[in-house]
Amino acid sequence: MGAGYMMPEEVREDVRRIRSLTEKPFGVNLFVPDLGASAEADEIQRMEEILSRYSIELGLEEKPSLPGRDYESIYRKKLEVVWEEGVPVCSFTFGIPDSTTLHELKKRGTVVAGTATNVNEAVEWEEAGADLIVAQGSEAGGHRGTFHKEESGLVGSMALIPQVADAINCPVVAAGGVMDARGIAASLMLGAAGVQLGTAFLTCRESGAHPLYKNAFLHATEEQTALTKAFSGKLARGVGNRFIEEMDGQPALPYPLQNDMTAPLRKQAAKLERPEFMFLWSGQGVRLAEALTVKELMMKLVSGTGDLLDK
Amino acid sequence: MGAGYMMPEEVREDVRRIRSLTEKPFGVNLFVPDLGASAEADEIQRMEEILSRYSIELGLEEKPSLPGRDYESIYRKKLEVVWEEGVPVCSFTFGIPDSTTLHELKKRGTVVAGTATNVNEAVEWEEAGADLIVAQGSEAGGHRGTFHKEESGLVGSMALIPQVADAINCPVVAAGGVMDARGIAASLMLGAAGVQLGTAFLTCRESGAHPLYKNAFLHATEEQTALTKAFSGKLARGVGNRFIEEMDGQPALPYPLQNDMTAPLRKQAAKLERPEFMFLWSGQGVRLAEALTVKELMMKLVSGTGDLLDK
Repeated sequence: MGAGYMMPEEVREDVRRIRSLTEKPFGVNLFVPDLGASAEADEIQRMEEILSRYSIELGLEEKPSLPGRDYESIYRKKLEVVWEEGVPVCSFTFGIPDSTTLHELKKRGTVVAGTATNVNEAVEWEEAGADLIVAQGSEAGGHRGTFHKEESGLVGSMALIPQVADAINCPVVAAGGVMDARGIAASLMLGAAGVQLGTAFLTCRESGAHPLYKNAFLHATEEQTALTKAFSGKLARGVGNRFIEEMDGQPALPYPLQNDMTAPLRKQAAKLERPEFMFLWSGQGVRLAEALTVKELMMKLVSGTGDLLDK
Repeated sequence: MGAGYMMPEEVREDVRRIRSLTEKPFGVNLFVPDLGASAEADEIQRMEEILSRYSIELGLEEKPSLPGRDYESIYRKKLEVVWEEGVPVCSFTFGIPDSTTLHELKKRGTVVAGTATNVNEAVEWEEAGADLIVAQGSEAGGHRGTFHKEESGLVGSMALIPQVADAINCPVVAAGGVMDARGIAASLMLGAAGVQLGTAFLTCRESGAHPLYKNAFLHATEEQTALTKAFSGKLARGVGNRFIEEMDGQPALPYPLQNDMTAPLRKQAAKLERPEFMFLWSGQGVRLAEALTVKELMMKLVSGTGDLLDK
C-alpha cells in the first residue's frame, strides 16, 4: 500500500480494510520526509505564477499556493499507525529513518525494507538494519527512491541488481522494468531474491488507477516515458504529457513543496478527465502492460517463471 | 573490431591480422555517418575557444580546429574493405545504411547486425533486413547507438530486451550492463539469443586500453559513470572526469565534428597520462570488471552461465 501521500487516519482505515480482506502479509510504503526542504519566497512566487495559467485553464478559483503542512508530524503519525496496527512489512523511499524508528518497527516484528538506487545507498540501508533492500533500477515508474545525489540514482536494473547483491548480505528485491515472467526469471538470475512490480498491476481490472491513466498505459511505449520533477519536486518516471513537456527546464520547488503546490491542479485534471495535467507514473516496460485481472496476472507471472526456470 | 574511428587501410590491416590469428568468425563495427552534420561558424568558433584552454594546459601548439574530412568517402571506403575482405559479421551504430549497402553485404554472405536502443529502431532495422539486432540498454558504456530522437534511446536492458524480442522476429543480442554469467543468464531469460559485452573485456590483460583507463575502471563505481556529448557530439557513457564535468551544460558540436575537434586533446592527454581529458567509456556494471586474461573471463562466463541455467 503506497501511503506516501496519505494522511495518518487514511492509512489506518486502509490497513484495517486490508486486514479484513486477507490474513496474508502485506506492506505499507512511506516517504521519508526531507526536513530541510524549503524554498525562497521569490522561488515560491515564481512557481505560483507558472502554475497559475494551468489553474485558470482548469477553471480553479484558488490560485496555486503552499498549504504550509507539518510534514514531520504527518510522517510521525503515520509511523505510529504502522506500529499500532502491527503492519507486517514497512518499506521506505527517499531516505533512511532514524535508528529509533527502525528499532521500534523491528521490535514489533515489522519487516523493514529500504529502497536503494545505487550500491552505496544499499550498503547504508543494510548498516542501518534493513531486513531487505529494494534495488530500484532506472527503468522503474514513479519516484526515484534516491537519497544520495540525484544523478547517482539512475542505474539500470541489469547493472544495479548484481552489484547490489555482491555488496550486501540481506535479500535484494529487484524493481524497475519487471513486467512479466521473463523479468522475474532475469531478476533471480541477477541475484535478486524477489521482485517488486508496479506498472504491471496498474492496468489490472482491480487497479484503482483513473480509467484515463489505464488507457494511456495500454497505448504507451517505452520511449514515451520521461523523468520529471514537475509534479512533486523529486525525479519520477511517467508517460510524457503536456505538463511534463511545458515544465521541462523550469526548476521545480523541492519535494514535498512542489507536490503540494501542484496537488489541486492534478485533482481538478482528474475530475475534468484531462490526462495532460495528471501524473501518469509508468516504468519503461509499459508496452508489456495488459488489461488482466490481478488473479490472471499473478497466475501468468508464477507459472511463466516456473516454466522459464525449469527449461 | 570497433572500426568507427579507423581509416580504411587500418581496417584492412587489422582484418587481415585477425584472419592470420583465427579461422573463427569475427565482426567489424562501423559508425553510420550523419551526412547532414554541420555547424555554424560561430558555434565552431565558440567550441574552439572553449577547447583552447585545454590545448594550452596540455601544451599543444596547434589550436583546436576542424580538419574538414570527407566522412562519407571514408565510410564508403571502409565498407569496400568489409566487402573485399569478406568480413563475417558487420554491425552498425548510429543509423541504418542504405538498402544498396545492406544488399551488397548480404550478397557476399556478411551477417548484418543493427544497433537499436528502442523498439521502433529495432523494427526499422528488421524491416531494412538486419540478420540480428543488438538491443543496447541504457547501462551500456560508450556511444548510444540511438538514431531516432536522442531522448528515445535511454531504455534500461530489463525493459528493452523483452519489448524488442516481442516486436521482431530476428535474434536479439543483449548489450548494456552485462558483465558476468548472471547478466548472460538474465539476458537469455529476457528473450535475447546472445549477448554483447564491452566493459567486461576492457580490463582484461590483453585489452589495448590505456593502463590508466584500465586502472580507473578497476576502481570505478556505477554512480561515477555519466552520459556526455563533450567528446564526440553523440551521447556516450563513461567514467566521469574533469573534462566531462567542466563541459557539462556546454552545447557540443554535432557528431563527428566535436569528435574531430577534441581528438588532438585526447591524444595528447593519453601521451601525458592525464586521464582527466581522456574518454573512459564504461558501462554501469563497472564494479564487476576484473583484471583477468580473456581466456579466464571467457571460461568464467561460459561455465558460470551453464551453472545458473542448470540450477
